Amino acid sequence: MHNIRNIAFAGSGNVAWHLAKGLRMQGFVISGIWSRNYANAKTLADSCDSVAIENITELGLNADLTIIAVPVKSIEEVASAILGYKGIIVHTAGSVSMNVLKGKCEHYGVLYPLQTFSKEIPVSMAEVPFFIESSSAECGLALKEAVSKLSGRMYEADSHQRLLLHISAVFASNFSNLMYVIGNELLKSSDLPPEVLYPLIAETARKATTGDPLKLQTGPARRNDTLTIEKHMAALASQPKYAEIYGLLSKLISNNYK
Amino acid sequence: MHNIRNIAFAGSGNVAWHLAKGLRMQGFVISGIWSRNYANAKTLADSCDSVAIENITELGLNADLTIIAVPVKSIEEVASAILGYKGIIVHTAGSVSMNVLKGKCEHYGVLYPLQTFSKEIPVSMAEVPFFIESSSAECGLALKEAVSKLSGRMYEADSHQRLLLHISAVFASNFSNLMYVIGNELLKSSDLPPEVLYPLIAETARKATTGDPLKLQTGPARRNDTLTIEKHMAALASQPKYAEIYGLLSKLISNNYK
Repeated sequence: MHNIRNIAFAGSGNVAWHLAKGLRMQGFVISGIWSRNYANAKTLADSCDSVAIENITELGLNADLTIIAVPVKSIEEVASAILGYKGIIVHTAGSVSMNVLKGKCEHYGVLYPLQTFSKEIPVSMAEVPFFIESSSAECGLALKEAVSKLSGRMYEADSHQRLLLHISAVFASNFSNLMYVIGNELLKSSDLPPEVLYPLIAETARKATTGDPLKLQTGPARRNDTLTIEKHMAALASQPKYAEIYGLLSKLISNNYK
Repeated sequence: MHNIRNIAFAGSGNVAWHLAKGLRMQGFVISGIWSRNYANAKTLADSCDSVAIENITELGLNADLTIIAVPVKSIEEVASAILGYKGIIVHTAGSVSMNVLKGKCEHYGVLYPLQTFSKEIPVSMAEVPFFIESSSAECGLALKEAVSKLSGRMYEADSHQRLLLHISAVFASNFSNLMYVIGNELLKSSDLPPEVLYPLIAETARKATTGDPLKLQTGPARRNDTLTIEKHMAALASQPKYAEIYGLLSKLISNNYK
């Protein structure tokens, strides 16, 4: 197995968007991009000196590596469509077993980048942790050699570890973002601008990346300040969905410190 | 009313700790610190060229401003104990009305710093938003003049706005920290180090301080990826309290994008 140089993409969503651009910037050739939505494939291809592919069976032709970054329900179908492929196929999904690619081609694996990607927001790829799984040691070496040009943070993780990691990331990222959304929405009724929360959001995250968030928890529930909790619950009475979350999460925090 | 120069503190918790040190660094004299726990008052006093006061009735003697930063259930009692005080009394609580200080002395108000404070973690006070409420315009001016030496971010907010702001902060900070706690705990079972989540936590917060988190939401629930959500719920079956939160928050996210 020779070094990876040409890389094809199936998918043109947030993950494909950042991976393709990042790999191109590190000198890889993006040999082709297929997407169920051809216009999206074209947009991404234009931005990384590549070409949009209309027929998926032609996608991998010149690629040493084909990266499948499509909705999870379509991964197996897309892999099956790239018939007789001689390179390495990987998918990028946290919660999908590597074995979904078994039998589709000889060399396969997973490249899972643990980051929140939005097309319009630049990401420092060098700091994104990549979790690698591979069908063979040889295939793993080739993947690591390629990813090492993109990021300084590589880990091996099997499909079970990756599933737990993905759930963990949903809490640490997707759900904390929802807390920002709710915070913003509640702030609106106070006639204060969203910016007043920025230092708090930034500092809470900064602390959590320097120490144990369990020890750094603050707030009424941490202090078992039932007076304040009751006042907050009363103020949320007209928004029962937020009151429900407030009550549930406060109870969980209190219990952590009993 | 002359300029504020001498400041006394009732309380020696996280808020008093950072305010007293920050004000001392900006040239204010911390004239005395009282706390229900004398040893804590002594520790804080030693760190900001002040003295610990044993008898609360002697606290405000030489102070232009007395800052009450005690548990909310004790604010009124502490204010009542500083009899015949001629300076300004403020409390620092988000969810307590200014009127709790009415009748305790002539000049009173609220200084609410919107940040998460832990004693052992340094905070850049210059970036902490301060929310000010005061019993008179004259008192408000004196408070603003003093706080402006500490922070570049000052806002006026009445007691109702401050209550909403506090609830908003509980979501954006205390509850997002709980999401980090749960993320960490789930990660433990994967044999991967907590550090793998750091870039994700940092980036999620960074994005939320540059744009609207509602638009920047990512993850399975945002994509309505029921396959992944079901897989995650199944994996959390042995931890029902986390499964309950996962289900509730995922539903809320999905509904935001329907």
